[in-house]
Amino acid sequence: MTVQEMARLARDAQPALGNATAAQRNRALEEIARAVEEAAPAILAANEADVAAAADHLPGPMVARLRLNQKKLQGIVEGVRAVAQLPEVLGEEMAAWERPNGLRIRKVRVPLGVIGMIFESRPGVAVDASALCLKTGNAVLLKGGREAARSVAALGEAIATGLERADLPRDVVQVLPATREAAAELMGAVGLVDVLIPRGGAGLIQAVLSQSRVPVIETGTGVCHTYVHKAADLEMARKVVLNAKLSNPAVCNAMETLLVDREVAAAFLPRVAADLKEAGVELRCCPESLALIPDAKAAQEEDWATEYNDLILSIRVVDGLDEALSHIRRYGTRHSEAIITADEAAAARFLAEVDAAAVYHNASTRFTDGGEFGFGAEIGISTQKLHARGPMGLAELTSYKYLILGQGQVRE
Amino acid sequence: MTVQEMARLARDAQPALGNATAAQRNRALEEIARAVEEAAPAILAANEADVAAAADHLPGPMVARLRLNQKKLQGIVEGVRAVAQLPEVLGEEMAAWERPNGLRIRKVRVPLGVIGMIFESRPGVAVDASALCLKTGNAVLLKGGREAARSVAALGEAIATGLERADLPRDVVQVLPATREAAAELMGAVGLVDVLIPRGGAGLIQAVLSQSRVPVIETGTGVCHTYVHKAADLEMARKVVLNAKLSNPAVCNAMETLLVDREVAAAFLPRVAADLKEAGVELRCCPESLALIPDAKAAQEEDWATEYNDLILSIRVVDGLDEALSHIRRYGTRHSEAIITADEAAAARFLAEVDAAAVYHNASTRFTDGGEFGFGAEIGISTQKLHARGPMGLAELTSYKYLILGQGQVRE
Repeated sequence: MTVQEMARLARDAQPALGNATAAQRNRALEEIARAVEEAAPAILAANEADVAAAADHLPGPMVARLRLNQKKLQGIVEGVRAVAQLPEVLGEEMAAWERPNGLRIRKVRVPLGVIGMIFESRPGVAVDASALCLKTGNAVLLKGGREAARSVAALGEAIATGLERADLPRDVVQVLPATREAAAELMGAVGLVDVLIPRGGAGLIQAVLSQSRVPVIETGTGVCHTYVHKAADLEMARKVVLNAKLSNPAVCNAMETLLVDREVAAAFLPRVAADLKEAGVELRCCPESLALIPDAKAAQEEDWATEYNDLILSIRVVDGLDEALSHIRRYGTRHSEAIITADEAAAARFLAEVDAAAVYHNASTRFTDGGEFGFGAEIGISTQKLHARGPMGLAELTSYKYLILGQGQVRE
Repeated sequence: MTVQEMARLARDAQPALGNATAAQRNRALEEIARAVEEAAPAILAANEADVAAAADHLPGPMVARLRLNQKKLQGIVEGVRAVAQLPEVLGEEMAAWERPNGLRIRKVRVPLGVIGMIFESRPGVAVDASALCLKTGNAVLLKGGREAARSVAALGEAIATGLERADLPRDVVQVLPATREAAAELMGAVGLVDVLIPRGGAGLIQAVLSQSRVPVIETGTGVCHTYVHKAADLEMARKVVLNAKLSNPAVCNAMETLLVDREVAAAFLPRVAADLKEAGVELRCCPESLALIPDAKAAQEEDWATEYNDLILSIRVVDGLDEALSHIRRYGTRHSEAIITADEAAAARFLAEVDAAAVYHNASTRFTDGGEFGFGAEIGISTQKLHARGPMGLAELTSYKYLILGQGQVRE
């Protein structure tokens, strides 16, 4: 079967899901959780085969992302049950009004339709994404990485079992072949697929953005800054900076560049640099900060634009708020940016002028996350402005339609 | 200057517009209205030159769309003043909540950034679109049809004059060269242009959708149905059908296909067919309706999928709600669909199951329009589900960002 044909099956099956009751969709999630638990031996065996095939030629971190175990699998199952418990969003009346001619207009939340997920080595994404899509009435086509093909196929079987037990069509979740050709077909399935959400490294996302004819939601790249303003509480700044860099350096909301006002650089940088170095962070400094942290490296121009996702931090001394804003405008990726200051006017300007999904005053950029925002779950973090920005929860997987109720009105 | 360079200028200039006060942006609109009025002789002369050059090789309706006169120009100016009077949307707090850790999260409305408009022969689109974009803090790049180049350039000059009088950078509205190369460059300006909105015929929209790497909002194609259910008030149905076909057949929300329940076909079709024929409408019928309207034409398969935008109507007899829903699912373009019925249960099912931007009960599909919805203005009608669906007013030209206010919070 071609991807085009699979997408057509998904489109034809989706209305049964979109028009199912919330109870039925939640029951499907419970059944999927149970089916994954029951299939754990088969899933872990498939995953072992994937890991064995990958171990000799893929980098270690990728193999680590690929590897499942009983505990990881249980976490995935619990995630599905948590999504089932989230409040229903479909059918929500987002607005309603009456026109002078008596027409009543209601704006109600509906599924997007068919969602394509393109992801890499983490097999769990297949289940997480399916749970969120099913909860919101969307069919989903799963295109995972070739290295995860056996694992994703085994998880897909369990999902199909769960759907059948809940009397929903199994075509609403389909695992596509893990090939480049399948990805290309998916990216060309205009009219059958409503949106593609790539999840993975910058290379994958850029490839999808440049090739897809289906609308894409761009996720993930984060060159995030923390700006320590001259009026900062320096002890608060130190704690926030250490958290933003160290609590999980591999993720998109981790800080990559520290900006410090000249006035407080000498008071702030040597201490925080010592903490960072003790934690194993490599520091890449502008000339002025280098003078204050003599055993650091000199930053190169490309450092300011790099998402390290690692224990590396670039540091730059700036001449105040304007220079900080201009640095962020130039090098930021519109993900998450923070100012640390006790000066409310400076904070207000930073919040107003920084163009990013999440702008922080006196907090760590690490909070940009569906769970931390209270959304209960997230399918990704959008760094574009169209449709959804920042952490995407259930509402961001929906569209709306207008229902117009008349008594025979005609237009003049 | 390349389009890339122009887009960069627009991006650099946009923050000054986005951070301007509502009063300043409205003043710019007033100044633009005045500048267009003052430049009327130059604009009309440029337009005459466009029309003269087009008249010998372009079809009549296109020349009609291209042609300006004092009255049309005054309508355009009044449109700008009307946009200035609309309520402000930027800065609106769309949601706000506090997390258990004390973080306050505010979701506020912000401009999209830089919008690319690709349009055809109507020069007025340059002004309408600029007004809506400026009102919402967005810079705009205008790529009009080659046949309208002189008119759009003259209008662009007047817009620039208005911006300067209001102390806003003129780079926030730029007229691109009216060439294919410029369009291609615009469609490739990822990272500089946030969204493209094509306005024009199906050919233009499909070309932009298939070529653009910048996100696109699909507008316009409408194969709209009116379904006369067996429980319809047939006199209401007649009035609504005539309005949906006749009030403006050239537009996307006009009815293209009439579906009629078998039970009422004999009572309904001959009368309404006579009215339609009297109004000059060509009828293309399924075998069953053809038997009731003997001097009509037989519909071909492609008729069901055709947006005539003309005095042509296809007619089909259906076997009830299920067949009507299935016909609309197959041939509809997700624009506007209507059911005429006194049966509330049938209406409820139609409203729930039809997947379209606007679904009507007992009203004409012609109401799918920003003005008729009460939005005050519209930049187009989206037929996609991502970002915006249906008539797009001011809110649909915005995005949002999250402002997170802390007291030094760090993530566990």
